[in-house]
Amino acid sequence: MKIINKVIQSTNMEFENISEHIGKRITLHGSIYKIRKMSGFAFVLLRTKRQVIQCVYSEEFSDFKLELLKEESCVKLTAEVIKEERSKTGWDLQMIEVEVISEPEAESPIVINNKMVDTSLENLLDYRPITLRNEKERAIFKLQEGICIGFRRFLTEQKFTEIRSPKIVSAGAEGGANIFHLDYFGKDAYLSQSPQFYKQMMVGVYERVFEIAPVFRAEKHDTSRHLNEYTSVDFEMGYIESFEDIMGMEVRMLGYALAELKERYVYELDLLKVSLPDVSAIPSIKFMEAKELISNKYNRTIKDYEDFEPEEEKLLSEIIKKEYGSEFVFVTHYPTSKRPFYALEDPNNNEETLSFDLLFRGLEITTGGQRIHDYKKQLAKMKRLNMNARLFESYLMMHKYGMPPHGGLGLGLERFTSKLLNQDNVRLATLFPRDINRVTP
Amino acid sequence: MKIINKVIQSTNMEFENISEHIGKRITLHGSIYKIRKMSGFAFVLLRTKRQVIQCVYSEEFSDFKLELLKEESCVKLTAEVIKEERSKTGWDLQMIEVEVISEPEAESPIVINNKMVDTSLENLLDYRPITLRNEKERAIFKLQEGICIGFRRFLTEQKFTEIRSPKIVSAGAEGGANIFHLDYFGKDAYLSQSPQFYKQMMVGVYERVFEIAPVFRAEKHDTSRHLNEYTSVDFEMGYIESFEDIMGMEVRMLGYALAELKERYVYELDLLKVSLPDVSAIPSIKFMEAKELISNKYNRTIKDYEDFEPEEEKLLSEIIKKEYGSEFVFVTHYPTSKRPFYALEDPNNNEETLSFDLLFRGLEITTGGQRIHDYKKQLAKMKRLNMNARLFESYLMMHKYGMPPHGGLGLGLERFTSKLLNQDNVRLATLFPRDINRVTP
Repeated sequence: MKIINKVIQSTNMEFENISEHIGKRITLHGSIYKIRKMSGFAFVLLRTKRQVIQCVYSEEFSDFKLELLKEESCVKLTAEVIKEERSKTGWDLQMIEVEVISEPEAESPIVINNKMVDTSLENLLDYRPITLRNEKERAIFKLQEGICIGFRRFLTEQKFTEIRSPKIVSAGAEGGANIFHLDYFGKDAYLSQSPQFYKQMMVGVYERVFEIAPVFRAEKHDTSRHLNEYTSVDFEMGYIESFEDIMGMEVRMLGYALAELKERYVYELDLLKVSLPDVSAIPSIKFMEAKELISNKYNRTIKDYEDFEPEEEKLLSEIIKKEYGSEFVFVTHYPTSKRPFYALEDPNNNEETLSFDLLFRGLEITTGGQRIHDYKKQLAKMKRLNMNARLFESYLMMHKYGMPPHGGLGLGLERFTSKLLNQDNVRLATLFPRDINRVTP
Repeated sequence: MKIINKVIQSTNMEFENISEHIGKRITLHGSIYKIRKMSGFAFVLLRTKRQVIQCVYSEEFSDFKLELLKEESCVKLTAEVIKEERSKTGWDLQMIEVEVISEPEAESPIVINNKMVDTSLENLLDYRPITLRNEKERAIFKLQEGICIGFRRFLTEQKFTEIRSPKIVSAGAEGGANIFHLDYFGKDAYLSQSPQFYKQMMVGVYERVFEIAPVFRAEKHDTSRHLNEYTSVDFEMGYIESFEDIMGMEVRMLGYALAELKERYVYELDLLKVSLPDVSAIPSIKFMEAKELISNKYNRTIKDYEDFEPEEEKLLSEIIKKEYGSEFVFVTHYPTSKRPFYALEDPNNNEETLSFDLLFRGLEITTGGQRIHDYKKQLAKMKRLNMNARLFESYLMMHKYGMPPHGGLGLGLERFTSKLLNQDNVRLATLFPRDINRVTP
């Protein structure tokens, strides 16, 4: 019998560690990203876990033929770290030996090792397993990881408990036809549009909960803003005094995540030339006031009194940026008619809800608000909306047996990432996007 | 215009903090979990985010009537922290004032504030939004949170990148009929059985990746071990020298998570009387040797030479525990016929794969192994298995354009949690389980 207790072998070195080895030999592994032949020598770029590391090949000091190396071959190499003042890193890596671990069968039909992958969106996504190997492409999702690490750590510090709600459900939280249907052993089931019901239930259990997980929307929109499967960052908290407590929590959460990027993702921020927005404070405006503000500033007629047109979201963001210097803006008090049945109405005006959206650089990235926690009030509202309360029996259980005042929000991770990187399409911030025309790769 | 930049209000105090306030008044909020009337006074248990905190009511020092309090009411209270040597915490909390924030509409039909929720599994799950409020019930999922925090932190330290693969897919990774079908805008799509294909693709991008996310299996089993939706902890790593590197990584990952529980989840471990297993080293045995060992020790005839019967998994765990003192055991070299098409075969014996399962306390909790990374080898195996390679074009792209030797594993989070707590049904470690008969709540 064998006993498995191997200590994990040390992982590859990064720039920071290499500097400590000047004058010594080190070994590295990775894929050959690019070979740049010069006169008498060559630059060989090695793609490691996170960084692309430049090595120098020369017949003078390298004990192998350059022809041995192919782009996208996987190699282990030995190199000498030479002090080099003219280099950004302070050193050069002189390749000594190389061991080819594996070789590609063919050359990629798409050039992936230039600064950008220069192809159509269609091709970029069709060849995702390969195009993601481009250093800028993969940096996008490394930053997305950093955002999630920031969100998670912040929420955990604030005593939120991470939960896992089911994605196969018997009823949709958002209502409407935008829901995927599933044959569940001969019964009807659906894909969850939102963890809404579950996170509310869990407020009764842990007071503060969050979940970062996929949600599914069967929307037929084919726009640059819509995905049919996306990652929703949801939190929900009890014992709030106002729905502004939720907004306050979001301001801090965003600030925390951006600070995480600034501290630990400098490599990717530099590579993608990202300038992080300021999020120390976010202006907040009522929905109707925002509609009027846009109408007045741009001399536009208000057509829809219940929702924003996408163009209006952009214009509002422009105004707020100009006048308040903020790239974020909260819009509050959305009309009751446009919010779900669980939204709490303003006690002073039941045509409006104590709810909000957060716009970032012209795009809605968050919807949130305070929920009805009183059983009778929730039943009365469902009756008013002609809903059959019996279908929501397990949801209403929490109201019936006691709930604190509470509320929360859902943030679209891909939308946030995409806007942070000033991309013009949310698909660019999605590893393997799902839209009305795409379920592959 | 309002500006939202509220500093987060401090969250509720826990035991540790209360000790610092002896002789002073503090305010707390939470749900009234239980009222225990004694002669002349009463114990009032307050359920806060994580702990149940005992307060004392007495007409002598409490400025309100006890009748004001109902179980499952949400309250804010002021209490004086009195030094009390006889108390485990070192203090008593004398209730002074209380503000009732909300009240339940009805009393729970199931008693939730005893040591255990004393009801059938059926009821326990039907009334999940309420039964989870029981302190032991909720402690289970707090521990599950701790396990995930441990896994995540370990993998991040080991330079794994967290990814998000799609759950709506065009083909299953595991093959077979155990897959949920979806109508995707008139096209066929499925629910992902595993992130297998995607995590392999991402090894070509980041070398080491992981994902903790739901997977879906349309299995018709109705057993204590099966769920139709569960959380899979997946990792995949490149540049391995042997499939034992993966097993070594898992040993460390489990050890790290258990250390996290031991350090930060003492409250829940005590409440549930959990004894954590030792995981500093795990014995490993070949599949065929294990079959023979069980057969010899228990005088059983081997009926199935390709798989374990559930009873055999239990017996093997018993033997290993007795002889090696380990509650975990790796079983390696599963027959090629029982492993998926991407499993790498042993170069010395192509009837066996370089794969493994991990058994814990008699139950399989992990499946893993090394994958085929060579394009021609993978094509040849698919041909041998009569598979149509054209259907896997985007999967095979990575092999074609270059991949390092790699492998990984998937661990069932609910199974691991369940066995850790010595539960007899995996549903008990699932917030809202989905099985062949259940899609609610």
